[in-house]
Amino acid sequence: MRDPLCPLQWEQGVLWILDQRKLPGRIQWIRAVTPERVARAIETLAVRGAPAIGIAAAYGVVLAAAGNGSRNAVLKAVHRLAATRPTGYNLHYALQRMQTTATQSGKNLLSRLEREALRIHREDERSCDNIARYGSELLGRKEGVLTYCNTGALATGGVGTALGVIKRGWRRGKIREVFACETRPLLQGARLTVWECTQTGIPVTLICDNTAAYLMRLGKVDRVLVGADRIARNGDTSNKVGTLSLALAAKSCGIPFHVAAPLTTFDLSLRSGGEIPIEERSAGEVTSMVAGLGKLQKLNVFNPSFDITPAKLVTSFITDQGVIRPPFARQTVLRQKQ
Amino acid sequence: MRDPLCPLQWEQGVLWILDQRKLPGRIQWIRAVTPERVARAIETLAVRGAPAIGIAAAYGVVLAAAGNGSRNAVLKAVHRLAATRPTGYNLHYALQRMQTTATQSGKNLLSRLEREALRIHREDERSCDNIARYGSELLGRKEGVLTYCNTGALATGGVGTALGVIKRGWRRGKIREVFACETRPLLQGARLTVWECTQTGIPVTLICDNTAAYLMRLGKVDRVLVGADRIARNGDTSNKVGTLSLALAAKSCGIPFHVAAPLTTFDLSLRSGGEIPIEERSAGEVTSMVAGLGKLQKLNVFNPSFDITPAKLVTSFITDQGVIRPPFARQTVLRQKQ
Repeated sequence: MRDPLCPLQWEQGVLWILDQRKLPGRIQWIRAVTPERVARAIETLAVRGAPAIGIAAAYGVVLAAAGNGSRNAVLKAVHRLAATRPTGYNLHYALQRMQTTATQSGKNLLSRLEREALRIHREDERSCDNIARYGSELLGRKEGVLTYCNTGALATGGVGTALGVIKRGWRRGKIREVFACETRPLLQGARLTVWECTQTGIPVTLICDNTAAYLMRLGKVDRVLVGADRIARNGDTSNKVGTLSLALAAKSCGIPFHVAAPLTTFDLSLRSGGEIPIEERSAGEVTSMVAGLGKLQKLNVFNPSFDITPAKLVTSFITDQGVIRPPFARQTVLRQKQ
Repeated sequence: MRDPLCPLQWEQGVLWILDQRKLPGRIQWIRAVTPERVARAIETLAVRGAPAIGIAAAYGVVLAAAGNGSRNAVLKAVHRLAATRPTGYNLHYALQRMQTTATQSGKNLLSRLEREALRIHREDERSCDNIARYGSELLGRKEGVLTYCNTGALATGGVGTALGVIKRGWRRGKIREVFACETRPLLQGARLTVWECTQTGIPVTLICDNTAAYLMRLGKVDRVLVGADRIARNGDTSNKVGTLSLALAAKSCGIPFHVAAPLTTFDLSLRSGGEIPIEERSAGEVTSMVAGLGKLQKLNVFNPSFDITPAKLVTSFITDQGVIRPPFARQTVLRQKQ
């Protein structure tokens, strides 16, 4: 049986993708043998989490080379996969590497692309370990930690980013309890983070997103740890919508607020958060909970997937290269990428 | 056909209660002829909204007098109804009046109680009109207004509190658009406020609660208007959980944040918000959205119905006696009550 805590598994020319839309009720795998299948898995959120999306897309490019074999088909797949989701930067980072590899390859196109995808996957796994190590050093003793969306094994190629820090911290007695926000509309917190915590034996308390500020005021939260989808040069951070609210509440209560992300999430071409493209998704994701709501003619729905947290609300950034603060210098952040 | 925008209707010794749990899909009425039926309607949120709960409870006391006739049965009903929900103050205010009336009545117990309940209902209707009038005077031109939970006709004995202000403001061209937060876990915003707005022809945009801060940062919100369940002497306000988050976000964006409530919501016996009892409700209200989640053995859920917004985050209080600011003097706020 496949390990659901490794949601992307490359096996003899097939990418097995854990269908996260079915969790926690069902463990179901998608067998992807074409880039189009991978693209649709990304668009429909069968696979999600900025690092995981990047890895899945890299394998998608390999599938293009395996299927058709032409460099043209590969570049077309890069294009298709790049268009799946606009906000997360890891996707573009991974596809950039795959494209460069394709351009530089001769007859060995397939094998070189496969090697590069596996390398991207393995690097993310190592990044997660490093983030967990650097992040857990920040923790005190028996802390109550609040987290958002899902930033664990299900979102990455390793143990996770923010949730990776939490797992390691918990094993070392630095975490008392995790507060998971349900994360509307798709409930990645309630469905995925709660599940990952209970699988790992970490005590977890579920709250509605709107309850986080009150929980902080009650003094139950010692620290907030979140992931990121894209981080601008000045430290402005796009992450799952609702992150901004948490950062404001943490600031008002004097609670440290950390963003945990690999350097592949940093987009130094952007000066500030205002330049980050924010994906808007369908109204149905929000209205589907209430019978008849989607049919109301005059109803508008605003459903952005992400928001922007200004850098000044972030205590520090936990990366695979250490704990850093903006502004980010190109030479520091790009070290691993080059 | 009964008007669903009058959710409490007293008719020949019967209290008809609109079952708000069925909205917007179905208009269904509960026929209550005992105080116990009213108490259960309050506990299960068939009727909700602090002013509406107070009115329903008052009629519940009348039903006790009609059923048994003894003063003892009436006082027992007061006790039972007072225990239904701890946070909203209007309930205690209304029951206090009913109890005083019962104590002062002789043979005319039933008719005096009925008169008092009708008076409480009518007074709330007038309070709503006054709140709407005072509140709409604060509005500029074509404002985008964000509101929370449901504070309309469904929550009161009249046009509503915060939503009453919005309705009147809209008729006068002072409102461009309403942003309704869905209000997890029971979605009173998505189910009730959206419905009331579309019934009234007001353009409404639904958002997840976690999206409000981002919407404010985008400059779409000119003002936040919320209701209240209990307000302490210093202005600390308990309202549906999530209100605190909105107040923090509004403060950070320099957006005016108003609490609209009748004076019957002010509890001057409490010095500050820390003394307000906060109701916690069942885990199932939160977990029911995700199949299998409620069965996880190790999962805790924190589900408070309300939170406390510190007075300093509130721009002003829109009451039936005018727009006021704390600290509240006993002689001002109790004027209407005595």
